[in-house]
Amino acid sequence: MPEINVNTGRRSYRINVGMGLAESLRQYDLLRNYSSVTMVTNTTVMRIYGDTVIQCLKSVGIDPFVVQLDDGEEYKNFDSLNRIYDELLTNGADRKSVLLALGGGVVGDMTGFAASCYMRGIDFIQLPTTLLAQVDSSIGGKTGINHTLGKNMIGAFHQPSLVICDTATLKTLPEREMRAGIAEIIKYGIVYDYEFFCWLEDNFLSILDHDASALNYAVARSCEIKKKIVELDEFESNIRAILNFGHTYGHAIENGMGYGKWLHGEAVAAGMVAAATFSTMFLDLAHSERQRIIELLQKCKLPIHLPCITDGDNASRYLELMKSDKKNIARKINLVAIRKIGEACIFPASDLQVIASVESCLQE
Amino acid sequence: MPEINVNTGRRSYRINVGMGLAESLRQYDLLRNYSSVTMVTNTTVMRIYGDTVIQCLKSVGIDPFVVQLDDGEEYKNFDSLNRIYDELLTNGADRKSVLLALGGGVVGDMTGFAASCYMRGIDFIQLPTTLLAQVDSSIGGKTGINHTLGKNMIGAFHQPSLVICDTATLKTLPEREMRAGIAEIIKYGIVYDYEFFCWLEDNFLSILDHDASALNYAVARSCEIKKKIVELDEFESNIRAILNFGHTYGHAIENGMGYGKWLHGEAVAAGMVAAATFSTMFLDLAHSERQRIIELLQKCKLPIHLPCITDGDNASRYLELMKSDKKNIARKINLVAIRKIGEACIFPASDLQVIASVESCLQE
Repeated sequence: MPEINVNTGRRSYRINVGMGLAESLRQYDLLRNYSSVTMVTNTTVMRIYGDTVIQCLKSVGIDPFVVQLDDGEEYKNFDSLNRIYDELLTNGADRKSVLLALGGGVVGDMTGFAASCYMRGIDFIQLPTTLLAQVDSSIGGKTGINHTLGKNMIGAFHQPSLVICDTATLKTLPEREMRAGIAEIIKYGIVYDYEFFCWLEDNFLSILDHDASALNYAVARSCEIKKKIVELDEFESNIRAILNFGHTYGHAIENGMGYGKWLHGEAVAAGMVAAATFSTMFLDLAHSERQRIIELLQKCKLPIHLPCITDGDNASRYLELMKSDKKNIARKINLVAIRKIGEACIFPASDLQVIASVESCLQE
Repeated sequence: MPEINVNTGRRSYRINVGMGLAESLRQYDLLRNYSSVTMVTNTTVMRIYGDTVIQCLKSVGIDPFVVQLDDGEEYKNFDSLNRIYDELLTNGADRKSVLLALGGGVVGDMTGFAASCYMRGIDFIQLPTTLLAQVDSSIGGKTGINHTLGKNMIGAFHQPSLVICDTATLKTLPEREMRAGIAEIIKYGIVYDYEFFCWLEDNFLSILDHDASALNYAVARSCEIKKKIVELDEFESNIRAILNFGHTYGHAIENGMGYGKWLHGEAVAAGMVAAATFSTMFLDLAHSERQRIIELLQKCKLPIHLPCITDGDNASRYLELMKSDKKNIARKINLVAIRKIGEACIFPASDLQVIASVESCLQE
């Protein structure tokens, strides 16, 4: 079973990848060190995996409290956060209590942020049940909630104490979400690992078919790459920002279309094509490499064009939304671009450059 | 002018103590490094010092955004926090923006917490205008808000980038708040510095009279002691907890009476007498030393008895409230006690011990 160790400033932790891990939770002695366990999930995941996890905990004498949030990005807000706090305080949870996030990125981000702020910080464990969460959001310690004026604007860096990626849970994941998750896996190849990108060109179908060996390798390799980058730059002062490849355009899509309309991975896919296009225009990325990226995404049935987000001037609207991105300083857009597949850099883009790239990638 | 340097894990910063510093803000080159400045204050402090600070910033070309919160502990909640976020996001504040907290502990705690979570962490500067905030809450990086089920339950450790203690601002502070602030100053003597305690016995009147030399010394020495302890243990794993001397009882008073009825420092004063009483009962603290503590607090016209907080059994009610304290693990009360004046320790107290100490200190 692949096991990855992450070492950051204040915390070291394991990421375990394999099939059936949720049912082997009882093996984790770690859990018994806590004064109480509160499991946070959403109503959908609760129905499918809630009992498995609860029974597993009970078999080792842990009787978890459970918070069931509503399912959806639109509930990633202060109200849901408060429901977690109400539960913790009502049950007398103390600084040695732990939160267990069972679900996708929304559950994981909120649970991590709740843990970060409860009594100024308690431990939390990630048990991600979507491909996107397993390869991206559950590791690296970025936690947070949305604000009506921007996604993930309120949050904290708070590393989990353990991440359990049970790839068997992906069998119940809608195919559309599997495809969206692959977008982030492809991203790791594009920004950091040319060999992995080539491997994905050959194996994407096996991943989508839930072939155990291909799926576990893809998840573990993604976690490894993310781990390396997070260890170098936990607080995103510099290199970690390359993990946002395609995300500046992607966030504008999600925001412009209204959150929830496109899946995050779908928005990132179209965003990566735009960022690759930008890179051919202003950084000498070879057109053939951009073409390989487009073809792989297309084979995964992911979108490759920026959608229309307004009846007015789309390029201006994209620019406006991209300017509100967290990574920007003094409203200048810091774009992640690539020189070639496997090699990314941060590029301070002018407004005109951004507009040119958007116009060239808009849906006809 | 006393200047204290604080060195913690991720951040080093200065504490400046003196009279008239708010008007000399322009000397702080630091401020010009930020992309924008947002001043957070409350309506009361705004009326008295708002213009001074704003004009001072404008004189060096900084045009601050201003958030005026309602004045009072009851507004230390998610709603106020959101007003800060609304302002920041509306004005396009980015990761290089800074928050400036002008006010007492409530403003400082909320501003620090807002800074801690905005885009996962931006800088903030403390300009405390109450004695309590100058000697305690503005330094050390504890930030947070209240939850209906407990005070400061939601928060973060986030160190300020600069603290400016302008003791001239204390001239407009109600005398009752000056006295409450002295309680925390006396605390530093009791838990860490016998000489300072003796100095306070001789000089408390000069502090209350706003004698510049006595007041600046008392504030600076308090900051120095807090700095030493915070540097040893930023995240309150062990020794930092001694700064909570009297606070476990004190929080029960504030909570039991309803927040805002007693000032924090008043509750701490009565709580310190209870903790000293506990220490004579179970730790061999000399009765004469307990008496000196009581006399000094009394001379400062601070309360020395625990108030009645219920028509029923007060000792049980105190015990219940003290058990919900953040410092407790598995609902056992970790009490800060003293062996003698200047030497504190953490003592895991049994329920019966706590009840005995409460009963012996209740208001007749």
